Amino acid sequence: MDFMAEFLLRRLAELATLSDTPDGLTRLFLSPAHKSALALVEGWMREAGLTTHMDAIGNLVGRKGGSRTLLLGSHIDTVRDAGWYDGNFGVLAAIQAVQAAGDLPYAVEIIAFGDEEGVRFPQTLSGARAIAGTFKPEALAGRDADGISMGEALVAFGGNPGGIAAVARQPADILGYVELHIEQGPVLEAENLPVGVVTAINGASRFAVVVTGDAGHAGTVPMPMRRDALAAASEMVLAVEAIGRSAPELVATVGALAVHPGAPNSVPGMVKFTIDIRAPLDATRHEAVLAITNAFDRIAGSRNIDLSMTQTHDAPAVICAGRLREQLAAAVKANGIPPRFLPSGAGHDAMAVADLCPVAMLFVRCKGGISHTPAESITLEDAQTAVDVLVEFLRKFRYDD
Amino acid sequence: MDFMAEFLLRRLAELATLSDTPDGLTRLFLSPAHKSALALVEGWMREAGLTTHMDAIGNLVGRKGGSRTLLLGSHIDTVRDAGWYDGNFGVLAAIQAVQAAGDLPYAVEIIAFGDEEGVRFPQTLSGARAIAGTFKPEALAGRDADGISMGEALVAFGGNPGGIAAVARQPADILGYVELHIEQGPVLEAENLPVGVVTAINGASRFAVVVTGDAGHAGTVPMPMRRDALAAASEMVLAVEAIGRSAPELVATVGALAVHPGAPNSVPGMVKFTIDIRAPLDATRHEAVLAITNAFDRIAGSRNIDLSMTQTHDAPAVICAGRLREQLAAAVKANGIPPRFLPSGAGHDAMAVADLCPVAMLFVRCKGGISHTPAESITLEDAQTAVDVLVEFLRKFRYDD
Repeated sequence: MDFMAEFLLRRLAELATLSDTPDGLTRLFLSPAHKSALALVEGWMREAGLTTHMDAIGNLVGRKGGSRTLLLGSHIDTVRDAGWYDGNFGVLAAIQAVQAAGDLPYAVEIIAFGDEEGVRFPQTLSGARAIAGTFKPEALAGRDADGISMGEALVAFGGNPGGIAAVARQPADILGYVELHIEQGPVLEAENLPVGVVTAINGASRFAVVVTGDAGHAGTVPMPMRRDALAAASEMVLAVEAIGRSAPELVATVGALAVHPGAPNSVPGMVKFTIDIRAPLDATRHEAVLAITNAFDRIAGSRNIDLSMTQTHDAPAVICAGRLREQLAAAVKANGIPPRFLPSGAGHDAMAVADLCPVAMLFVRCKGGISHTPAESITLEDAQTAVDVLVEFLRKFRYDD
Repeated sequence: MDFMAEFLLRRLAELATLSDTPDGLTRLFLSPAHKSALALVEGWMREAGLTTHMDAIGNLVGRKGGSRTLLLGSHIDTVRDAGWYDGNFGVLAAIQAVQAAGDLPYAVEIIAFGDEEGVRFPQTLSGARAIAGTFKPEALAGRDADGISMGEALVAFGGNPGGIAAVARQPADILGYVELHIEQGPVLEAENLPVGVVTAINGASRFAVVVTGDAGHAGTVPMPMRRDALAAASEMVLAVEAIGRSAPELVATVGALAVHPGAPNSVPGMVKFTIDIRAPLDATRHEAVLAITNAFDRIAGSRNIDLSMTQTHDAPAVICAGRLREQLAAAVKANGIPPRFLPSGAGHDAMAVADLCPVAMLFVRCKGGISHTPAESITLEDAQTAVDVLVEFLRKFRYDD
């Protein structure tokens, strides 16, 4: 068996040395480190018996077998000062699993997407969108911090802006997309489970809120004469928390909050904060947004405080396909593990691929639920289990009605 | 009558041109602008028939009359980008009033203190402390942002560190201290009154609070698994507000608050904030501190959040002397104005002079309750009223039992 987890983790460590920075791991879309990573992963794909090519948008694609195709994969770009497993694990685990699964009655393509994190350019999920046929050419004009456009960077990388439209797959050819990924949350660890089956990638709404009262001297303005923006915002933070707790699998968070003037001896005159609301069902999320809006209006009214609330993000939930989900759960069970179904709070390539075909995801437990830091960690045993489950899934995969 | 308010406001405008900065008004203790201001005010004191000298700590003192002495005054240093009236008004109004009051059966000293704002050196109220005999020589070692010690700056200014102890007055010689000052709060404006009589300079307690929970991904950590530091801090902010509202003339404020990591998609792991609590009665303030501490312990306990609370400041209240207060109120009444008694939420030179003798203060309405900005403003009529009240007070002043 050459899908031994030691081997997989050694490859992940080797891949993690390819960084745009001398220390740590930072591998941005279309960067030199991305190019080196692509070459390294391409070698491993070939070793696994796949025929490979880089497509017009910079995705690395490894293919094996006939015409109707199951897509596997994840991304090989990273955030700045990243961990080793986010994205990269899903790509390398798929390579190991396909090699171990042997001959299959359908074709497999493993895609190492180049732009899931969206760190370099204003656009995100570029590779998955190209595959799904939803890539918008105007995204090529978006520029990075050095003023280089995505189109320019893509040409320098060896890609082909004019060829992106042709990257789109035909739905009739594609059986589905399955992605392995670290959980990036604490649920599996808390329940002592190595893997879990994703039910949906949560929809998300974000808002920027500005609460305006009157600044004043903390010693001289009597309490009844105050319009304290921070006291009002504090009521709002607690309302967001209470509404977030009101439905299972709903989360609502005030993550950033800034106070003006922000001096110990000043009554706060203005507070700016963010709200992030996510749920696997869009109806749950929309109800939560409505409840938050109503609560804020009530709080602002009772305190005579000015309120502005601007939506900055709105993405619908992506439901994982029941059929793929059940087959993943069966493969989990076959490995002696009770299948735990859970939503994904973070975004993934699967979100964009869902416009093309049914998608499913398998989560792997990660230490402390932590991601996007060098402290990101998974165990040898869990890596092994994840690959075992995917092998089992690939061998048993039923795709005809 | 040469105490016409136009004259007084013209002098304040002229004094406001003496700044350490080319634009706006910034006049730090022992700076070149302080030196020029001292010379200008000294000229006006002499015009008013006072004999003048600068004492060892840099106070300008103008004296008139016999042995037992009533002290008047305020400060001529300012904050950075200051208004024209904070401090300066009290000094110049006293000069006008003493000149207008004519011969008095007791001696008067007007002191233009040099260090009330405490902006330049770690120490504050240096001039008033020297007069009261409470100046601590180790304060001379405190350094400004350029590394110059207060002692060095004082020598360069023409002062005399070795002579500061001799600046202290003998309590038996001093009848009291009366200070005119802008209110720096909104109470008089709200009640449509030009002046008010200060009952006490509020005692103040300040705390630095650190609330520590667990940071996490706003999408992936379920609500029941969170230890959200901002939600806990929000409950605490509301507890501070509620306790501040629980007693008249008590104020309690969370003025500064910072969230870590402070990203829209992160559950806050740590929040740092300040509390400022003030009251004219120390018992009220101490009860409020106790109530806040109890509320915080309860909130931290119920949320399983770590709490650290460090006291950073503790100053007792200074009660204005009943006898001086009543005579100021009588002078207010004699000018056809109902006497409004109110506490001072801000600190003043009178706070330090109280260690020497009975003190009293008259507040003058200021526009919007605003101070410490160039927008600081008083009206001609209110300036006139304040001087009229002080003249009436000086003429009627009874100081023997």
